[in-house]
Amino acid sequence: MNAIEKYNRRVDQINSLLCVGLDSDYTQLPEQFMHYEYPQFSFNRWIIDQTHTYTSAYKPNIAFYEARGDRGMMALKLTLEYLHQNHPDILTICDAKRGDNGVTSLAYVSAIFDWFGFDAVTLHSYLGKDSLAPYLKRTEKGCIIVCRTSNPSAGELQDLLVDGKPLWQIVAEKVRDDWNQNGNCMLVIGATYPDDLRKAREIAGEMTFLIPGVGAQGGDVAQTVQAGLNGAKKGMIISSSRGIIFAEDPGAAAKELRDEINQYR
Amino acid sequence: MNAIEKYNRRVDQINSLLCVGLDSDYTQLPEQFMHYEYPQFSFNRWIIDQTHTYTSAYKPNIAFYEARGDRGMMALKLTLEYLHQNHPDILTICDAKRGDNGVTSLAYVSAIFDWFGFDAVTLHSYLGKDSLAPYLKRTEKGCIIVCRTSNPSAGELQDLLVDGKPLWQIVAEKVRDDWNQNGNCMLVIGATYPDDLRKAREIAGEMTFLIPGVGAQGGDVAQTVQAGLNGAKKGMIISSSRGIIFAEDPGAAAKELRDEINQYR
Repeated sequence: MNAIEKYNRRVDQINSLLCVGLDSDYTQLPEQFMHYEYPQFSFNRWIIDQTHTYTSAYKPNIAFYEARGDRGMMALKLTLEYLHQNHPDILTICDAKRGDNGVTSLAYVSAIFDWFGFDAVTLHSYLGKDSLAPYLKRTEKGCIIVCRTSNPSAGELQDLLVDGKPLWQIVAEKVRDDWNQNGNCMLVIGATYPDDLRKAREIAGEMTFLIPGVGAQGGDVAQTVQAGLNGAKKGMIISSSRGIIFAEDPGAAAKELRDEINQYR
Repeated sequence: MNAIEKYNRRVDQINSLLCVGLDSDYTQLPEQFMHYEYPQFSFNRWIIDQTHTYTSAYKPNIAFYEARGDRGMMALKLTLEYLHQNHPDILTICDAKRGDNGVTSLAYVSAIFDWFGFDAVTLHSYLGKDSLAPYLKRTEKGCIIVCRTSNPSAGELQDLLVDGKPLWQIVAEKVRDDWNQNGNCMLVIGATYPDDLRKAREIAGEMTFLIPGVGAQGGDVAQTVQAGLNGAKKGMIISSSRGIIFAEDPGAAAKELRDEINQYR
């Protein structure tokens, strides 16, 4: 069972396309967690306990842990261990957006897949296929290629026209036609541009998309779901971070978004 | 004094354009370092002690430390502390190739510039200017944009034509015309394509280039230096990693490459 199959099985089990982004910025943690040895881990455990019923994937962005150095790395590892022990059915995604040459990619593979034990990782495409090969070869893992992002200046490079097509569409085609030979690729497609999401679905067929930008970043749920579903009424990992983890009641916020997504499936 | 001025001062002081890449892969460390508490740090200290006389910049690729988790992070931090204490005149570059949205970039800034204390970082451009802004605002730090890499499949995306120009040249122009408003930008330009290096120099004027790929990756020193120097006979941070740190005599290997570079300046 590879990462995508693991995710789909969870989606069917709990009827949810929701991913919770564990972007547990140390400077924003509630006071009650600060006296623990690893505040980010204690906070994550609390979030997981409240949200797991509604959640098919957890996606920590590693930047928020690296900001705390070695202690942040340990907090993230403890989070992964907690998930492995208590919720082995939930997909784990390391939002790391790595992209380096092949030898270096091997080292990142050791870090992300082996030391932490993540199921999937987000990756940059700028160095081409040989830079991605060490990840792609891990057939049981998910390789989620950054394609169309949801930030304000996303279009600056991603919309440059190559043979009349925006660059991000060329990236999507490369993944579809060449890089996905082991069937373990996905795409990052931001939620803030529903037309682009629809186009990405056209290009990529049944491929699964990781969709950040719902909630705090402004993506509309109805439009996102209607534009992005694949033929199996799945194919989307819809991620919300700050909107859930820093909500007054994270469990309720997760349930609410899960239900809102399902309303349009 | 910003990072580029720091580098140039060091270049003049010791007459060297050499950068040593501290890609200290744990699995390849000599046996003699394995009994230390932080083998990667002990190895780096040994490398620094032998090579600093010839070296204007040290560039650890953070992947090799992340592969060791929290202990790798600490080994890298100890390396930076050792450099700050003993060789404060030498530029420190975190080869991290980060590229994420603005909020996440702030967290990477905390990690790389503040927790580790690096002078400069390598960055991906795919998310555009707002994703780079948190780095660019740190006017004293160096922002080294990945432009033309030296790996075999570099051209797969980087050579795509946009308005008749390869994508990597568009990136170079964006850095020159827009992203370098604080004068703290540099470009990564691989050594394996001297014609591209010459073209990059044409586009980017006096800008400083980080040039990996000399040595193990096959870049020719004479061609690289002749193609890449700027008007001040500087403008290049020429990096060698495995060719120096895993040489039988790393100090001699550093001196030899420094001297070979100077032969063509």
